[in-house]
Amino acid sequence: MSHHQPDVDVVVVGAGMAGLVCAHRLRRRGVGVLVLEATHRPGGRTVGIDLDGETADLGGQFIGPGQDRVYALAAELGVATFPTYTAGANVFETETGRLLRFRGMVPKLSPLTLLDVARAQLRLDRLARTVDTETPWLGPNATALDGQTLQSWIDRTVRTRGGRRFLTLACQAIWACEPAELSLLHALFYIKAAGSLSALTEFEGGAQQDRLEGGASGLAGRLAAGLATDLRLSAPVRRIDHDDTGVTVTVEDGTAWRAGRVVVTVAPPLAARIAYHPPLPAARDNLLQRLPMGSVLKCIAMYPEPFWRAAGLSGAALSLRGPIALTADSSPQSGRRGVLIGFVNGATARDLAAHSEADRRTILLGALTRLFGLPARTPVAFVEQNWNEEPFTRGAYSAVFPPGAWTRLGSALRAPVGRIHWAGAETSPRWYGYLDGAVRSGETTADTIARDIHADPAATRA
Amino acid sequence: MSHHQPDVDVVVVGAGMAGLVCAHRLRRRGVGVLVLEATHRPGGRTVGIDLDGETADLGGQFIGPGQDRVYALAAELGVATFPTYTAGANVFETETGRLLRFRGMVPKLSPLTLLDVARAQLRLDRLARTVDTETPWLGPNATALDGQTLQSWIDRTVRTRGGRRFLTLACQAIWACEPAELSLLHALFYIKAAGSLSALTEFEGGAQQDRLEGGASGLAGRLAAGLATDLRLSAPVRRIDHDDTGVTVTVEDGTAWRAGRVVVTVAPPLAARIAYHPPLPAARDNLLQRLPMGSVLKCIAMYPEPFWRAAGLSGAALSLRGPIALTADSSPQSGRRGVLIGFVNGATARDLAAHSEADRRTILLGALTRLFGLPARTPVAFVEQNWNEEPFTRGAYSAVFPPGAWTRLGSALRAPVGRIHWAGAETSPRWYGYLDGAVRSGETTADTIARDIHADPAATRA
Repeated sequence: MSHHQPDVDVVVVGAGMAGLVCAHRLRRRGVGVLVLEATHRPGGRTVGIDLDGETADLGGQFIGPGQDRVYALAAELGVATFPTYTAGANVFETETGRLLRFRGMVPKLSPLTLLDVARAQLRLDRLARTVDTETPWLGPNATALDGQTLQSWIDRTVRTRGGRRFLTLACQAIWACEPAELSLLHALFYIKAAGSLSALTEFEGGAQQDRLEGGASGLAGRLAAGLATDLRLSAPVRRIDHDDTGVTVTVEDGTAWRAGRVVVTVAPPLAARIAYHPPLPAARDNLLQRLPMGSVLKCIAMYPEPFWRAAGLSGAALSLRGPIALTADSSPQSGRRGVLIGFVNGATARDLAAHSEADRRTILLGALTRLFGLPARTPVAFVEQNWNEEPFTRGAYSAVFPPGAWTRLGSALRAPVGRIHWAGAETSPRWYGYLDGAVRSGETTADTIARDIHADPAATRA
Repeated sequence: MSHHQPDVDVVVVGAGMAGLVCAHRLRRRGVGVLVLEATHRPGGRTVGIDLDGETADLGGQFIGPGQDRVYALAAELGVATFPTYTAGANVFETETGRLLRFRGMVPKLSPLTLLDVARAQLRLDRLARTVDTETPWLGPNATALDGQTLQSWIDRTVRTRGGRRFLTLACQAIWACEPAELSLLHALFYIKAAGSLSALTEFEGGAQQDRLEGGASGLAGRLAAGLATDLRLSAPVRRIDHDDTGVTVTVEDGTAWRAGRVVVTVAPPLAARIAYHPPLPAARDNLLQRLPMGSVLKCIAMYPEPFWRAAGLSGAALSLRGPIALTADSSPQSGRRGVLIGFVNGATARDLAAHSEADRRTILLGALTRLFGLPARTPVAFVEQNWNEEPFTRGAYSAVFPPGAWTRLGSALRAPVGRIHWAGAETSPRWYGYLDGAVRSGETTADTIARDIHADPAATRA
């Protein structure tokens, strides 16, 4: 029966890093794959844009120590890495617009505030160590930690107003959401998945240490080129039929593929929007109802040169005044041009979206000008990317667990449903939400499937 | 151009109470409607089942004072109401299985616990009065209230262990979720939308005061009969195209209808699963990512007679031991048979679902037997309904706002997106989540649309 003759061993839904790596690795192990991507380009939450001959990253771009799998992938694909520019002082802007220069990650707040922030960081790191990232719902204190928001923890633990403001800014910068939206347990899980809070926030020695030559999107580009016609773009998957003998994956225009298995790599809110027949088990469906994406708008301003460097500035800034909460130097390694990137996070990203494009540009360049001086006002190129408006991403950096989700439904995050496997940066117990987490999840899922198929080829192709 | 020739004035997505009432009212005002329902039956979260010649409600069934619109609808449709049986004592079961008889809503806990619960109720009612249910995000204290879970509030406010247990049980009973999952602001909004906490919990004088002759599903049945061929069953809407001139609504099998407007009445997580072209604005999409449904399994046990009445029991029980958290007498008014209904809520509903059907029956009847005695073990009929497993409902009683959602994105809950209107029990500022809220939302939306169309007929039919 043709119904039982799979068109392909494995269909991969989504050509973000997880999907591309999964397909790449499966092919290498002799498993036939087809990758279906909803948009017109591979890369998912990494995307490159040409600005005056340089590729700029509108999405994920940094990598750092401990992210071994993305470094290994870059090496394998021949993509060189180079250190993020960090010489000079960082800038901190207070709510009233006062500018302070500082080194490291915490600006020169008042001694009391500094102490308060240091204590909070120590406590978060210490609490994070109690979380097992494979099974965060099983920890001794999981229910209590998952019963409250990070906001409640900050309100209870951080005594100074300055400390609370700074931790709120840190939350917005790290998770692209408000502390009100985030389960304390998820924050701790996320910290542990990276190693420590400073691993998340630091440039040197942290997740922002290095960049990829030609942009992070180069990884996806090379993987996609390798897949050639096994990658179909502009093919949004709308329906997955599944039974004991295989899966049928149907895209928007009605084309359907039969396969032994399917790997869904899209972010949780988008995985929820595929129609599954039979329907997903209640626990998996209920989990997918609960994992919204963070909100982030990233802007990129290119200048004739990195003018801030001459002024002794690194290009990194933190601002309580906003709307840009943090910036970094994202200039090409050559220094041929100067590039600043700015992030507008959480509720602010939504508020900003209400303005016209022209107004947003004025507001964003105004913010950069306050931080870096008049030359910031007149870039040679300026682009912005509101990830919440991308219909097939609908937010960034990653999905955020609200209170109660990990402890009630966490065990449904990674468990396959019959022949449906789940991958993506949100399924990785290491570097959840990061490029490296996406790579790991693609690798792990490919290994699991390849092992199953080689152990019992009939089970897939029957 | 046929493209500009609407097939119908308004397409309504979903034949739950909101959709049916909306369509019914639009037709009365001379507006042409077509209702598309995903399942094989109208009624949404109300559904009737025949048990030995009596209609039993597997979903919503109670109505009470203040729910004027559902009473008016019942009167209009000729559906009589009758009081829920409440004579006799209620039963409270402690965690260790001790049974206490009580009257009213709060059992005879220790004096300290009683005081604690009474204080908590008073505080919740007082806080709820500060919430404007039209705009909960604008209240003076909205950000602080929305920054924490109900769990955090209970932990901070309720001093006795017994009090905390009882309030957790109350949360599970009222919202079908754990206190960890619920924004304190949402709990307060919900209380205010009903009037007070006791309006939610009471039988006499509260939302469980009355029942509908022949079951709540009779309302949907009569409305559906009136719509005749303007209601299409087994027609899951998968796509809505919309522009300045109208909408095109496409169902699973590819059939498409052109209309002037569309009213989406399905619950928020399901509204998120329709593909919109162009995509929804970020705020609306982001809100839909954040509103999961509660979890509830309802069971119905029918006996030769309401045997508990002779023992002086009302049939209402609250249990800390579980898995059934609360019960009620749902016998037909005639008393020809005895019917007990039981609710398994929140995390417990999910845990129970892991058992086989036979085991669940044993567990559930065992729980009823502990509460009401040996005759409960041998019903003449027994059914259960796990609302989380219904692919086109995916939970009940209603969507639950986690922390941060109301204040960040609440303004996107009811605002139309061009020619797409939103209705459903979750959009009502009165009796949110109740039958009455669904009726109100259908009426309000119909009135808005009818007003617009009559003001400018060309705008719809152009």
